[in-house]
Amino acid sequence: MKNENNSKLKIIPLGGLEQIGMNITAFEFEDSIVVVDCGLAFPTDDMLGIDLVIPDISYLEENAEKVKGFVITHGHEDHIGALPYILKKMNLPIYTTKLTMGIIENKLKEHNLMRTTRRKVVKHGQSINLGKFRIEFIKTNHSIQDASALAIYSPAGIVFHTGDFKVDYTPVFGDAIDLQRFAEIGKKGVLCLMSDSTNAIRPGFTQSERTVGITFDHIFAEHQDTRLIIATFASNVDRVQQIINSAYKYGRKVVVEGRSMVNIITIASELGYLNIPENTLIEIDQLRNFPPEKTVLITTGSQGESMAALSRMAAGVHRKVSIQPTDTVIFSSSPIPGNEKSVSNVINELSALGADVIFQDTHVSGHACQEELKLIYSLIKPKYAIPVHGEFRHLKANAAIARSLGIAKENVFIMQSGDVLEVSEESAKVVDKVHVGGILVDGLGVGDVGNIVLRDRQHLAEDGILIVVLTLQKGTNQLLAGPDIVSRGFVYVRESESLMDEARKVMVDALDKCLGGKHADWNKIKLVVRDTMNDYIWKKTKRRPMIIPIIMDV
Amino acid sequence: MKNENNSKLKIIPLGGLEQIGMNITAFEFEDSIVVVDCGLAFPTDDMLGIDLVIPDISYLEENAEKVKGFVITHGHEDHIGALPYILKKMNLPIYTTKLTMGIIENKLKEHNLMRTTRRKVVKHGQSINLGKFRIEFIKTNHSIQDASALAIYSPAGIVFHTGDFKVDYTPVFGDAIDLQRFAEIGKKGVLCLMSDSTNAIRPGFTQSERTVGITFDHIFAEHQDTRLIIATFASNVDRVQQIINSAYKYGRKVVVEGRSMVNIITIASELGYLNIPENTLIEIDQLRNFPPEKTVLITTGSQGESMAALSRMAAGVHRKVSIQPTDTVIFSSSPIPGNEKSVSNVINELSALGADVIFQDTHVSGHACQEELKLIYSLIKPKYAIPVHGEFRHLKANAAIARSLGIAKENVFIMQSGDVLEVSEESAKVVDKVHVGGILVDGLGVGDVGNIVLRDRQHLAEDGILIVVLTLQKGTNQLLAGPDIVSRGFVYVRESESLMDEARKVMVDALDKCLGGKHADWNKIKLVVRDTMNDYIWKKTKRRPMIIPIIMDV
Repeated sequence: MKNENNSKLKIIPLGGLEQIGMNITAFEFEDSIVVVDCGLAFPTDDMLGIDLVIPDISYLEENAEKVKGFVITHGHEDHIGALPYILKKMNLPIYTTKLTMGIIENKLKEHNLMRTTRRKVVKHGQSINLGKFRIEFIKTNHSIQDASALAIYSPAGIVFHTGDFKVDYTPVFGDAIDLQRFAEIGKKGVLCLMSDSTNAIRPGFTQSERTVGITFDHIFAEHQDTRLIIATFASNVDRVQQIINSAYKYGRKVVVEGRSMVNIITIASELGYLNIPENTLIEIDQLRNFPPEKTVLITTGSQGESMAALSRMAAGVHRKVSIQPTDTVIFSSSPIPGNEKSVSNVINELSALGADVIFQDTHVSGHACQEELKLIYSLIKPKYAIPVHGEFRHLKANAAIARSLGIAKENVFIMQSGDVLEVSEESAKVVDKVHVGGILVDGLGVGDVGNIVLRDRQHLAEDGILIVVLTLQKGTNQLLAGPDIVSRGFVYVRESESLMDEARKVMVDALDKCLGGKHADWNKIKLVVRDTMNDYIWKKTKRRPMIIPIIMDV
Repeated sequence: MKNENNSKLKIIPLGGLEQIGMNITAFEFEDSIVVVDCGLAFPTDDMLGIDLVIPDISYLEENAEKVKGFVITHGHEDHIGALPYILKKMNLPIYTTKLTMGIIENKLKEHNLMRTTRRKVVKHGQSINLGKFRIEFIKTNHSIQDASALAIYSPAGIVFHTGDFKVDYTPVFGDAIDLQRFAEIGKKGVLCLMSDSTNAIRPGFTQSERTVGITFDHIFAEHQDTRLIIATFASNVDRVQQIINSAYKYGRKVVVEGRSMVNIITIASELGYLNIPENTLIEIDQLRNFPPEKTVLITTGSQGESMAALSRMAAGVHRKVSIQPTDTVIFSSSPIPGNEKSVSNVINELSALGADVIFQDTHVSGHACQEELKLIYSLIKPKYAIPVHGEFRHLKANAAIARSLGIAKENVFIMQSGDVLEVSEESAKVVDKVHVGGILVDGLGVGDVGNIVLRDRQHLAEDGILIVVLTLQKGTNQLLAGPDIVSRGFVYVRESESLMDEARKVMVDALDKCLGGKHADWNKIKLVVRDTMNDYIWKKTKRRPMIIPIIMDV
C-alpha cells in the first residue's frame, strides 16, 4: 500500500458520539469509503411515540460511488439495527463474522432484503479488500459472541478500531481476545486507536463471563426446591449457555421464553455457537409435565421492558406462566441507564407475588474497564487516540487514560458526530463538518416525525387538547353553528361541566365582537379563539392545553 | 392510660406503602384519631402532565369528629407536601419540631393558610396529648435536621414509629439519635415498631454526615485554583453547613442559587439551624467582584431536574452563571431512582463545557442500613413489626431483618395502604380495608384529572390526534362542508400532503355511503368516520392516532 499522492485518511463518525447507540463511522481515502457499523439508537424520553432512531447518511449518499460496503464489528442493535433502513436507501454489501451475519440475516428476512443484499462472512484473522482499504478482523470478547476488532489498513497508515470489547482470558465459548495479534499490529506502527469508552470511568478489570457461571452453579445448588426464572439479554448467548450448563448439571429442563430470546437461541444453535444437551430444552406448554423445581425458564425482560415476557409474568398477564410464591427469579443483567425504575417496578411486582428475587452478583459487563484500556493502549501504542462508544463523560475518561499513558494531549481527539478528522503520520486535525443527525422511525414512517410533531406530542401529553369548532355563513361570516368545544386529555368533562359551559359562553361573547364585521378574516377569528380560550383556561386552571380553532363555512 | 373497654388500637396507613412518597398513617383508638405525616408523591412516568399526587383522605373525612391533628416526623415533601391541600379540606392542628414547622409555615403562607391553621412546636423529649393518645417526640438523625421518632402511647399499648432515620453518632448539628430513650421505651414494652425500610436491602451501617465534610475539605484543598459549584438537596441543611465551613476555612465566598435552596437556607438561618460566618455569603451578582477560585456556588439541580439552577447552567441558559472549563462541579447527592438518566445528561453537558465533574464519595444516605435496623429492633424489642417507607422489596427486606431477630413470622406485617390493622397485647390482624388512593394535582385542579384523561394524554403522546369535521344539513343529513381533516402530533403535514389528501378522499367515499339516508344517526356517522380513518391510517403508517369526529349541523 503506497500513498503515492500523499493523500490523507479521513475518519468521519456519522453517529454514536453524542449518546450510546447509533454507531456508524466512515473511513475515507481518495475514492474509497468503508463504513464501520450501522446501528440504531433507542428514543430518548422526549421522543414521544418514536420506535427507534437511525443515522442520517446524507454524506454517504452524496458520495455513493465511493462507498464500498459495511463492515460490522458485532451483532448488537446499536451496531447493526439501522442496516435494514439504510440498505433500502443504499444497496451495499455487508462484511462480518458468522454469528453477526446470522443475526443480521434475521433482520434482512423481516424486511425482505435477503435477495438484494450481498453478504460475505469473514473469519477472525482474515482480511478483506475494499477499494484502497484492507480490513482485518481480529478476535475480541464482548457480551455477544463473534465480536471483532478491526485493523483498517490504508495507504496513509493503520487505524485500529476495538469495537465493543472486554478482555476475557477464560471465555465461555471460543477463544480469548487475540492480544498477540493486537501487539503484532501495534509493533507495525498504528496511526490511530479508536477504543470503547463505555466503562472508562470504572477502575480495574471487568470480570470474566465465566464468573457468572460459577454464581449460577451456586444458585442452582442452593435453590433445589424452587422453580428458577432467569432474565437476561437475549443476545448474550454465553450467558444462556451457562444457564443451560447449570440446568443440565442439576437435572432441570429449560424453557426459553420471549420472542427475541427464541430468535437468537435458534440462530446461535443452528450456527454452532450454543451447545444444548439432548432432552434439555422443552416447550413452554410442557412445563406442566415436570415438577417446578426441575425446571428453569430463561426469559427476556431483564430491563423491565413493559411488553417483555418477565414483565408480563410480574404483572400477572402472561398467558402461560404465573409467578408462584415458591419461584426464585434472577436478574442476570444490570439496568441500562434510564431503565432503573422499570426494573425496580418489576422486582417489586415479583416480590409482592411472593417470589424470591436475586439481582446481585449475577452479571458482568461486556465492556473493558480502565486497566483493560491501559493494556490495549500499551499493546497498540498508537500515535493518535480517538475514544468512541460512550457518553461524553466516558469519552473524556478514556481520553484521560490515553494521556496518562503518554499520548500527547493534542493527539487525543474527542470527536463529535459529523467531524471530519484528517490523519497522516505528520498531523491530525478536524478539517470539516458533514451533515449528521438522527432520523426518527415511527411505525412505517421514517423521518416523517420531526421536531414540530414531537413538540406537539409533548404539548398534548402535558396538557391535552381543546378543539373549538364554528360554522360560518360564506360571505357574511355570520355564526351558523357552534362554537362547539371538544377536549381530550384536559379535564374529566363530566366533573368539569360548569368549566366547559362557561368557556363556551366566554367564547360566544368574544366571537360576537369579532364576527359580523365583513372584514374579519379567518386568521383573525382563529387568533381570537386561541387567545380567548388560552386566557380563560389559564385563569381557571393554570394549564395550557393546545387550542385548535376549526372554522367551516357553508 | 387504662383500656377500660378492652378496645383495640387501629393502625391505618392511608398511603406510602406502595411507593416512596405520600406517607400518611392514621392511628385510631375509640373516639380518637391522630394522623402521622401528610406527604405527597411525585408523579410516575405514566402520569403525564401531573404536578404531584396527594393522598385520598376519605377515611379521615368520614371520621372527621375523631381526628385530633397531624403529627409530623420531619420536613421532607413526602411527609409534609400534601398538608396545604389536605388542610383546605380539613382544618386540623399541626404538631411538630421547630425547623419542620418553619418549612411547613413557608407552604402555609404560599397557600394563604397561616391564619386558619393551629400550630404547636414540640421539642424532642416533650409529649403532647391528643384525645386518648399521648405522643412523645424523640430525637433521630436524618438528611434533614429536627427529625423525630414518635412513641405513640395508647391505652392498648405503645407504638414506636421511627420516622425516616439513620444512626449518626457524630452529627454535624445538634445531638445524635436518642438511643437511650429508644431503649428506655423499649424496656417499658412496645407493642409495635414501625421502622424505615428505605435502605433495608443495604448491608452495614450508613456513614455519618460528617464524613462528607471531610471529603469536602479534601476537595477544597485540592482545587484551590478553580471555582467550585456544589449541587445538593435543598433541605439538607447540614450538608450546606459543611460546605460553608469548608468555604470559610479556605477563604471562599458562598453564593446560594436556586429558589428552594434559598428558601430553606433562609428558614434554617432564621431559626438557628445554620451558622453562617459574617462576610461569607454573597449575592450572585457580586460574583464578578471576586476571583472565581475564591468562590463556591451551592445550587439546586442535583437530581438533573430540568428547571433547576444547575441544569440551566449546564444547558447554557442560566442568566447569571456560565460554566467555564476551569470550573469543578460536585454532585453531593446520589440519583433518586428514576433520575439516573437526567443526572447523566447534566454531567455530560457540564463535561462537554470542559468542567471537571465529581460525583463519587460526596454523599451519604439519610436512611438506616441493615445493622442500624437490627440495633433499633434490639433496643425496642417490639411484639409486632411493621416495615414502612419503601418499595415492596424494601419492606420485605426489613421484614426479613425483624424475623432474623426472633420476631415471629405471624407478628411481622407487610401492610398495604388502606389496611386496618387491629393490635392488642393478645393479637394483631388486618380486619378491614378503607378507601385510599392518589389524587392527581395538575395546575389548580385537584382530582379533575383521572384515569380517562391520563389515558387520553398517553394516547395523544404516542400517536397524536386526527380531527375530522363535517357540517351537515339539519334533517337531511346532507354534507354541506367538510370533511376537513386537522392533525397534531401525527405527521409533519407539509411532507405528508399526499397521505392527508388521500385520507380525505377515503373519508368522502365512506361518508357517501352512510349519509343521504335519513336513518343515519350521528353516532353511526361518527363510528364510520372513526373506523374508516383508523383502518386507512393503520394500513399506511402502522400508527393509531386518536380520531375525533366532530359533526355540526346548520
